[in-house]
Amino acid sequence: MTEHEFLAALRTLPLHEGARGLKDDCALIEIGDETLIFNHDSMAEGTHFRPEADLADVAWKLVAINLSDLASKGAKPVGILLGHSLGGNDQRFIEGLREVLTAYNVKLMGGDTVAATGASTYAVTAIGKATCKPVPARNAAKVGHGVFVTGSIGCAMLGFEGHVAHLKAFNRPTPLVEAGQALAPHVGAMMDVSDGLLLDIYRMAGASEVTISLESIAVPVADEARRDECLRWGDDYQLLFTLPQGVELPWPATMIGTVEPRAPIRLFVDGKPVSSTAGLGYEHG
Amino acid sequence: MTEHEFLAALRTLPLHEGARGLKDDCALIEIGDETLIFNHDSMAEGTHFRPEADLADVAWKLVAINLSDLASKGAKPVGILLGHSLGGNDQRFIEGLREVLTAYNVKLMGGDTVAATGASTYAVTAIGKATCKPVPARNAAKVGHGVFVTGSIGCAMLGFEGHVAHLKAFNRPTPLVEAGQALAPHVGAMMDVSDGLLLDIYRMAGASEVTISLESIAVPVADEARRDECLRWGDDYQLLFTLPQGVELPWPATMIGTVEPRAPIRLFVDGKPVSSTAGLGYEHG
Repeated sequence: MTEHEFLAALRTLPLHEGARGLKDDCALIEIGDETLIFNHDSMAEGTHFRPEADLADVAWKLVAINLSDLASKGAKPVGILLGHSLGGNDQRFIEGLREVLTAYNVKLMGGDTVAATGASTYAVTAIGKATCKPVPARNAAKVGHGVFVTGSIGCAMLGFEGHVAHLKAFNRPTPLVEAGQALAPHVGAMMDVSDGLLLDIYRMAGASEVTISLESIAVPVADEARRDECLRWGDDYQLLFTLPQGVELPWPATMIGTVEPRAPIRLFVDGKPVSSTAGLGYEHG
Repeated sequence: MTEHEFLAALRTLPLHEGARGLKDDCALIEIGDETLIFNHDSMAEGTHFRPEADLADVAWKLVAINLSDLASKGAKPVGILLGHSLGGNDQRFIEGLREVLTAYNVKLMGGDTVAATGASTYAVTAIGKATCKPVPARNAAKVGHGVFVTGSIGCAMLGFEGHVAHLKAFNRPTPLVEAGQALAPHVGAMMDVSDGLLLDIYRMAGASEVTISLESIAVPVADEARRDECLRWGDDYQLLFTLPQGVELPWPATMIGTVEPRAPIRLFVDGKPVSSTAGLGYEHG
């Protein structure tokens, strides 16, 4: 099955109400007045990192991408569970883990180790607490909202290619935990940009049942000469969100488009319709 | 690193107080009056299941072994997060998942899919709610308690070997969710028997800083002629617990030993000292 087919099949299973129909990045459990937020993301050798990668970087990135999903919910991170394949440079993995846990004040809660054969897979379940209600979702973009993105897009692409100034963007991305908490009470929809800006905007429009018009020249990119590639590469972990126009920005960001009434086409880029996800970004599986 | 070395290194990281020093099977988060309980276990092709295994069985067992850890805490299961490697018979995996979720009234909350290369790894994070306080732990065996085990030991071994009557014990183990909830308010220490009865008793004695004397003939085994092997094989997912003597059993179980004051030797089997874990059961990594 492709990832798309597998997700469709998963949606026929008994789903928890906090799963949001498996159409969001995180799951929620409400306990009394608190809401706990859960995310599970894994990284596989050969798919998400090169066999020669420093496992300290892999450990950092694995935790960071999970915290980035929590950030897109405005959550305060609490802890992680780790699923670890023994057999690589486990000492370097531990060192990267120590650095990222310390940097974001996140605690290790438990997990599991396996002595797997072949390519390694590392997994993290991150647990956070909501800092506001309702918890931001992908599907809350409202007609008339502006569409915003934090930071610059394309840095991870340049880092992946070996540009020294951008290595950190690819190897050790920064989850925008503080930005997410500042934005969460004010936004319509919010998500992190993990699979490519165009693809993630397309998904936000679909989940929200609206059309989004993007002005591509407005997007801050890491390499002006390769603007189009920047918009389609992933791994930047910036926050993409919508906000009623005229509201003061709670965190520095750039307006890159507007939310419009639902049309047969979900996404317009510089006035041109985009009718499928082909080539928009990174689609799993 | 071996699993033992890796765990020792993990214990030097910032740990959540609910991690219980990484010396227990589950992690805890207290929220108001509620305690949530988390477990993460994975299964790797070639290590935990054969390449030709029916992925419906693998999905069942993956969820069941996580629920078994929740059961040893007396927890009521709430939901699971799934980490799935695409590329096997994903349809069969979905079918097994549907069966186990339905059988134990557990909901899917979310997760992640990866298109991994090489051998597949599947992971589950299971989330449950405590049904009593304190939540049972490995380290609460008290001198004078009896040591008990539910059911029979060795069924999974026979199932692994292809004995038709025991195939289900290996392929589709039963997590003792109801038994765990009945036992939890009364027990001293409790854990599930996953890596071999002798090894798990040895670990309970170590965590509790006591010595346990086992009367091996008292253990109900699946094959009398192979009693010693039964005691060392794992995968049975029965519950091992201690209880003050004279207390009425809240769930059917067999008394197989007693808890004694801490001695230099952790475990005596039929009066003979066992001084290391070598050969006692299945040690990871």
